Amino acid sequence: MVTPVDVAVIGLGSMGLGMAGSLIRAGLSVAGCDLSEAARARLGEFGGRSAATPAEAATGAGALLVVVVNAAQTEAVLFGDHGAAAVLRPGAVVIASATMAPADARRLAARVEALGLHYLDAPISGGAGRAASGELTVMASGSPAAFAAAESVLGAIAARVHALGDTPGIGSSFKIVNQLLAGVHIAAACEAMAFAKSLDLDLARVFEVITQSAGNSWMFENRVPHILSGDYSPKSAVSIFTKDLGIVSDIGRSGSFPLPVASAALQLFLATAAAGMAHDDDASVARLYAMIAGLDLPSMPQAEIT
Amino acid sequence: MVTPVDVAVIGLGSMGLGMAGSLIRAGLSVAGCDLSEAARARLGEFGGRSAATPAEAATGAGALLVVVVNAAQTEAVLFGDHGAAAVLRPGAVVIASATMAPADARRLAARVEALGLHYLDAPISGGAGRAASGELTVMASGSPAAFAAAESVLGAIAARVHALGDTPGIGSSFKIVNQLLAGVHIAAACEAMAFAKSLDLDLARVFEVITQSAGNSWMFENRVPHILSGDYSPKSAVSIFTKDLGIVSDIGRSGSFPLPVASAALQLFLATAAAGMAHDDDASVARLYAMIAGLDLPSMPQAEIT
Repeated sequence: MVTPVDVAVIGLGSMGLGMAGSLIRAGLSVAGCDLSEAARARLGEFGGRSAATPAEAATGAGALLVVVVNAAQTEAVLFGDHGAAAVLRPGAVVIASATMAPADARRLAARVEALGLHYLDAPISGGAGRAASGELTVMASGSPAAFAAAESVLGAIAARVHALGDTPGIGSSFKIVNQLLAGVHIAAACEAMAFAKSLDLDLARVFEVITQSAGNSWMFENRVPHILSGDYSPKSAVSIFTKDLGIVSDIGRSGSFPLPVASAALQLFLATAAAGMAHDDDASVARLYAMIAGLDLPSMPQAEIT
Repeated sequence: MVTPVDVAVIGLGSMGLGMAGSLIRAGLSVAGCDLSEAARARLGEFGGRSAATPAEAATGAGALLVVVVNAAQTEAVLFGDHGAAAVLRPGAVVIASATMAPADARRLAARVEALGLHYLDAPISGGAGRAASGELTVMASGSPAAFAAAESVLGAIAARVHALGDTPGIGSSFKIVNQLLAGVHIAAACEAMAFAKSLDLDLARVFEVITQSAGNSWMFENRVPHILSGDYSPKSAVSIFTKDLGIVSDIGRSGSFPLPVASAALQLFLATAAAGMAHDDDASVARLYAMIAGLDLPSMPQAEIT
């Protein structure tokens, strides 16, 4: 019989692995599971226990941290074959960090709570670097009991926990509003930089001037250096925003709420994915413009555009 | 015979008047001209000389600061009836601050330089507050002689002067890239806040969370407080962005460069103007969404939506 861990982490991508490392550094015992063998090996190096299935990681655990990409994967982790929900310790908390529609968060929470478990709707923000250093931002909502059960986990992974309400769905709503803005700002940054290039401007100078002006955004400041260096290795991939702005678009349509700016941005991410860059950095939207308009952006290896 | 002034300021809106005040505080003599009698009176209170025409203000002046809304008005100030260009001191500098297409800046500069004058392409950023305190940002390009002739004026009005190149048009290009981003970010901020309201979120909390997250922008931080307070008195009007994104759109079309995100934003400002809010604050795009979707944004007097 394997000793139950404090926290099971399902999904060991750059975010999940970073969070697992932060939990271990904080003194919590961690078991984790991922389809990638390399990721599971990495968890072992951090001092975590690698498991073959969510159920194997989560058996008897006090907390389950789900760091997968969407609602469907979260549901599979919880309720699919070898799912974790049935084997957690009674009163354990499920901390769901995937970006998903608020309605999905509410639905999953109801299923989890029906088993006598707690559910914290807890999307995260901050990227792989802050995941590794335990300085994420969490946009969380759930019952006071869910927050209490999640306290040691949140303390280990986050620099800031926004407690946004006492029902699941609210955290996801805040995250989705953030993603709407983030996606639009990336698309706008790429459109503006390509436009600047079409005007023959010095792009490094444009970055310098805009970051000191009213046209600045967090994403402009963060992503434009990728364009300036011609480095489109994925810090965050185009496919994240086809997914997240897709969720935004779904919510808008289901609620009859028009989102023309977000929709223009979504179409650009889709076009960039369609042009073969789905798994490259999301600043690749600038390369889409460069392809269309025949612009020569900084050190852009032609081979990368397939 | 009236004594020539150091600087003639044409256009005494909140920006021009603030700049005139900064010039006077810096010890420069100033004459100014505006269609508004109240603005001319205000200049008098600051210690400036009010003039009836650009020519009357500019006769013998060493510098002409043109703070009007577009290229057409700048051209009229310089070369229209009672225009200023013909009466400036030989070797004087024209400092053109209106947002305009780079091609217009180059065309006006050529006409000005043909008269033996200097031309500084010098769009400004920073708003009325920083105009009043002499802390604007200037995005300038022009000959070394133009910069030299403009030095005392720039020193009085600006906290930061970006010297972007030695030919007119470059400064305007930088400004137009900034306006593309600024306009998109305002439209996105309004779309996101209205969307958040449609999700029943606490808007003050959304502002707090987003300004600490990757979805933040300079404009989100600056304009969303207008939405939260329901105050749409024009700090910067919708009509500024129908104009500036209109210039962006014109440049894109004339250069066969597609601008889907900026175009979505332009359409929103046009829709907001069409709904009767052209002269209200540009955050009124949020009120457009509220009208469409039947949302109750903070203290929004129905009477203001006409």
